[in-house]
Amino acid sequence: MYHVSFEPGGQTVQVPEGTLLSDAIAQAGLTFNLPCGGQGRCGRCQVIVRQGQVRRRSELRLSREQVDRGYALACQSVVESDLLVEIPPQALVAHAVASEKAAAAVALPDNAGPWQADPFVAAYPLDITPPSLDDNTNDWDRLQRELAAAHGIEPLRAGLPALRSLGPRLRNAGWQVDAIIERATWEDEHPAPRLLDLRPRGTARLCGAAIDIGTTSNVVYLVDLQDGRVIDTASTFNGQIACGEDVISRIIYARREGGLAHLQSLVVGTLNELLDELCQRNGVEAQQIVRLAVAGNTTMIHLFLGIDPQYIRLEPYIPTINRPLPARAAELGLHAHPDAQVDCLPGVGAYVGADITAGVLSSEMYRTEKLTLFIDVGTNGEIVLGNADWLISCACSAGPAFEGAGVQSGMRAIPGAIDEVWINPHTFEPTCRTIGDLPAQGICGSGMISALAEMFLTGVIDKAGRLNRSLSTPRIRVGEHGPEYLLVAADPVRGIAADIVLNEADIANLLRAKGAIYAGFSVLTRSVGISLADVEEVLIGGSFGKYINIEKAITIGLLPDMPWERFRYLGNTSVRGAYQALLSRKLRQDVADIAGRMTYLELSADNSFMEEFTSALFLPHTDETAFPSVARLLRQAATAGSDREP
Amino acid sequence: MYHVSFEPGGQTVQVPEGTLLSDAIAQAGLTFNLPCGGQGRCGRCQVIVRQGQVRRRSELRLSREQVDRGYALACQSVVESDLLVEIPPQALVAHAVASEKAAAAVALPDNAGPWQADPFVAAYPLDITPPSLDDNTNDWDRLQRELAAAHGIEPLRAGLPALRSLGPRLRNAGWQVDAIIERATWEDEHPAPRLLDLRPRGTARLCGAAIDIGTTSNVVYLVDLQDGRVIDTASTFNGQIACGEDVISRIIYARREGGLAHLQSLVVGTLNELLDELCQRNGVEAQQIVRLAVAGNTTMIHLFLGIDPQYIRLEPYIPTINRPLPARAAELGLHAHPDAQVDCLPGVGAYVGADITAGVLSSEMYRTEKLTLFIDVGTNGEIVLGNADWLISCACSAGPAFEGAGVQSGMRAIPGAIDEVWINPHTFEPTCRTIGDLPAQGICGSGMISALAEMFLTGVIDKAGRLNRSLSTPRIRVGEHGPEYLLVAADPVRGIAADIVLNEADIANLLRAKGAIYAGFSVLTRSVGISLADVEEVLIGGSFGKYINIEKAITIGLLPDMPWERFRYLGNTSVRGAYQALLSRKLRQDVADIAGRMTYLELSADNSFMEEFTSALFLPHTDETAFPSVARLLRQAATAGSDREP
Repeated sequence: MYHVSFEPGGQTVQVPEGTLLSDAIAQAGLTFNLPCGGQGRCGRCQVIVRQGQVRRRSELRLSREQVDRGYALACQSVVESDLLVEIPPQALVAHAVASEKAAAAVALPDNAGPWQADPFVAAYPLDITPPSLDDNTNDWDRLQRELAAAHGIEPLRAGLPALRSLGPRLRNAGWQVDAIIERATWEDEHPAPRLLDLRPRGTARLCGAAIDIGTTSNVVYLVDLQDGRVIDTASTFNGQIACGEDVISRIIYARREGGLAHLQSLVVGTLNELLDELCQRNGVEAQQIVRLAVAGNTTMIHLFLGIDPQYIRLEPYIPTINRPLPARAAELGLHAHPDAQVDCLPGVGAYVGADITAGVLSSEMYRTEKLTLFIDVGTNGEIVLGNADWLISCACSAGPAFEGAGVQSGMRAIPGAIDEVWINPHTFEPTCRTIGDLPAQGICGSGMISALAEMFLTGVIDKAGRLNRSLSTPRIRVGEHGPEYLLVAADPVRGIAADIVLNEADIANLLRAKGAIYAGFSVLTRSVGISLADVEEVLIGGSFGKYINIEKAITIGLLPDMPWERFRYLGNTSVRGAYQALLSRKLRQDVADIAGRMTYLELSADNSFMEEFTSALFLPHTDETAFPSVARLLRQAATAGSDREP
Repeated sequence: MYHVSFEPGGQTVQVPEGTLLSDAIAQAGLTFNLPCGGQGRCGRCQVIVRQGQVRRRSELRLSREQVDRGYALACQSVVESDLLVEIPPQALVAHAVASEKAAAAVALPDNAGPWQADPFVAAYPLDITPPSLDDNTNDWDRLQRELAAAHGIEPLRAGLPALRSLGPRLRNAGWQVDAIIERATWEDEHPAPRLLDLRPRGTARLCGAAIDIGTTSNVVYLVDLQDGRVIDTASTFNGQIACGEDVISRIIYARREGGLAHLQSLVVGTLNELLDELCQRNGVEAQQIVRLAVAGNTTMIHLFLGIDPQYIRLEPYIPTINRPLPARAAELGLHAHPDAQVDCLPGVGAYVGADITAGVLSSEMYRTEKLTLFIDVGTNGEIVLGNADWLISCACSAGPAFEGAGVQSGMRAIPGAIDEVWINPHTFEPTCRTIGDLPAQGICGSGMISALAEMFLTGVIDKAGRLNRSLSTPRIRVGEHGPEYLLVAADPVRGIAADIVLNEADIANLLRAKGAIYAGFSVLTRSVGISLADVEEVLIGGSFGKYINIEKAITIGLLPDMPWERFRYLGNTSVRGAYQALLSRKLRQDVADIAGRMTYLELSADNSFMEEFTSALFLPHTDETAFPSVARLLRQAATAGSDREP
């Protein structure tokens, strides 16, 4: 056994020889980032071995100089002696995510139906005659008798939690109770109403939770089921991030011994943290949360339910289930009423999940006559095209480049991330804005889009994303990983640990990501015989969309070139859809209909996709006529350039 | 902290000052008997403190001499120093119970219906077209589609266990599977068939378990659901015995902090032991047990389901539920398929439970024209009177005297227990038979009945149960607890630890027990306007019934005086009823009908019960005309006596 100590926290653990450093870190209770899930692919779990020996199974992502200085990949290095290991702060998962600002403004749309007249869960007051020797009917039959007589509700079902508390609840309330009854979601299944709990008469408070399980962030809305109000919201990173940043890494992680159960417990742990926080802050008891509606992509829903997602990743990409059956909070381990129904919203396919159907629901595109394009760019790019008459969707495996993975200086959109870049067309000097105006730690997705657009317009890179090394600026140079553009130089005094750069490999990654999304647009519109120009409205959902600069996204060819007023940001449409389906029977039916009638186009089965993708690998596109506004900008830039070099 | 060591096992535990000895014993992992549940009532948890100091909260059940010799009640003594404590062997719960001999002979009765044509659980073979890029329906919808097409089964439900294994099961079997489907028990609830599991085509083996949860013993039949055969049986003591011997002690124990959960885990632990044993011995996997039917008295069923039974004990004696809703093996922690339905059979009231309805089912008295009396004497005495037209029942709280509790030398019917006694009418010397022909350790219920009858016929006791101290025999003497009759003298050489006696208090206890049961017969018959003499058949169920000597039971007035051929022993009717309801939809319906139409007479609400009880407190009864055969025996005995003393 060896002792492994960690700086700067000072934690120490005892582990046998041959233990992976990443396992030792987990044993020390540190929430450590394994973006690729421990495959040694991403090179982002770097730690510095200050004392002692490790054996590096792979040095692929490390420079010779780094190895000499003690750098090691935690997921690829095994303990061979007592160790003192430094963990750079960026390797730990940050816990603070800005809460959803727009919460107070969330309300049900006008097509929610008479939801208060026919709720999923309601409290029915009862004044029950207590038993006597002459009327010694058991509690359950007595309750059923009174509920049928007073409210016409029969027959009744219940799970063990309700039965277990029945006797004491009835007597402690003096037989004056509110019966909390769940009505079936669907007419055709589980038809009998279900007793969830009893409360002393007049004291039943019914709350619900609308949940979005994002690959990166989890969001919970605490909802008052009686007046429909969003009481409060909370969000944080999905605890699974420590096991991989994108869905594919998570699926691979789930294949490990105990991996699936671990991922399930991590996401449940994250949701419980949020539920606890919301309950405490608002004086709500977990027991009062009597229904939960959950949206998320297909992999996230599988992992949440503990269903192995491996076949989602393998051709022909088959989920175990698209329309999950109702589960109960207790069987998933959620901090809510143990018998609360956990209603996972329906998805469409392996890569178009409930986050997208919920997004379509809350975007209301399924009710409009206008031809609408809905996009949700997260780790994947999901696209839905259609209107009230038809809906077609696809998913582009954009990869997690826009979320910071696979990019040397990439990071998620957290404080310290560069989110906007301007480049002086004469000096090629950049100006960078960071989230929270903190010293830069790296660059996030919107920053990359911004930087790419500026580099392209100023000639720092060409159409193919190659750096113009003939420009006279020290910003363009050859680094460890080849040619690169220096955005911010390391400055230990200001807390900037390393140079922040975009290298040609990063740029190629970003071009593939944006190319995949744009190719999705093209294939989708062509498949229904229309042109992108026919699209009347573009709705941008997902948290990524909140920060995107549309002009710059058009400049790099990520978004189609159309008037800016056709674009609309919707923010987190997934959790809003979950909120609507939590409250309204009509909207719950609508999201089922959306999932049922949405065509799913599997791009890997579509021959034209690869062609469209290849054409979209350039800035903005090989077909420049599709981007007239960008051509205009390029002409202006050329003029400005000629001003400079007469 | 003090060290407490136990002899003869040598276990040592560390406990804080003030710890109850019984808790220290539990901490040491010893399965110790607390017959009254730790109330200090029964005095049977005696241990001997060899070294160190304890504080005795109560010495009520100990003689001065015993206290001087170090005896202490484990449930009433607290640790005050390091201790060396001897635990007498009889204080530990024995683990061996004879297995049910009659198992191989168990078969379904002729009214089981076409059960193989419409079973609760069946395997449906499927040859599923694997998914492809052109047919990328998810696994669950694909399975539903094929099941509907091939077998007309739709819609389908499933719990999380089935969903979680769906993807791998389909693929590992190459899409050639047996779908194991549970059909709803009732037409009107949970109508959709439920997928329990998938197996490679042709490999599905479907087993079930029929379970009787007795207060004392638990019995499990492992059943082949495909041919209906009882594969094997196993039984052992209910692990809850350590927390109280009778239902009332258990209910009181359940009121403790964590007591209910502990009792639930104990009985589940006992059942799992039996299930494991049966699976291992017969090459069956726990996963192959796909349905369980459970009988037991109302308190046992409540504890098994984790429902607080306290209101069963308090007037007006109300159970939480008589017809439990289906539960799943996983939520109860049973070693079976996690999604297997656990079907608890219906009871009638607080003291007439599913063990009795199952008994009536398997006795077939509900199908006969003959006026039948069914009795099940265990810790309680339950009585059912009726035939195919009507059924009425009551429960007499006979108390656990016949099971050995509340009797100085009492014990359960295990090896070493006296089960038959003969007394020489001239010398008053007894001859005792023991179970297994072992040195006597005490006397069990059938032994007590035998001894009482002999003592009565030989004049050792009078009609009121008082000892005739004028007889010239050293067997009648005054002991620590008053007048007593010595059955077997202590003989350390032969392993007989203490004198085995019946004292007047014991006899009074037994008279109350038999009086309560006989009063039950009287009230029940009178309530329907018939006489006991009209009864055409008496069926004796329960394990107690297996050992009873009918002649002697009539002699003491426990059973009504009628020709012996009208009596029939049925053995464990409860587990046999569970077995029938496990297999046959028709018989499962029958037991529900039995529970529904059986009238329950609450004796404590019946004014005539106390009068009947008082009359029955004599040997055989105040109304001697009701026991003509006993009068005849007494006359013969008197003649024999006069032979002796001319």
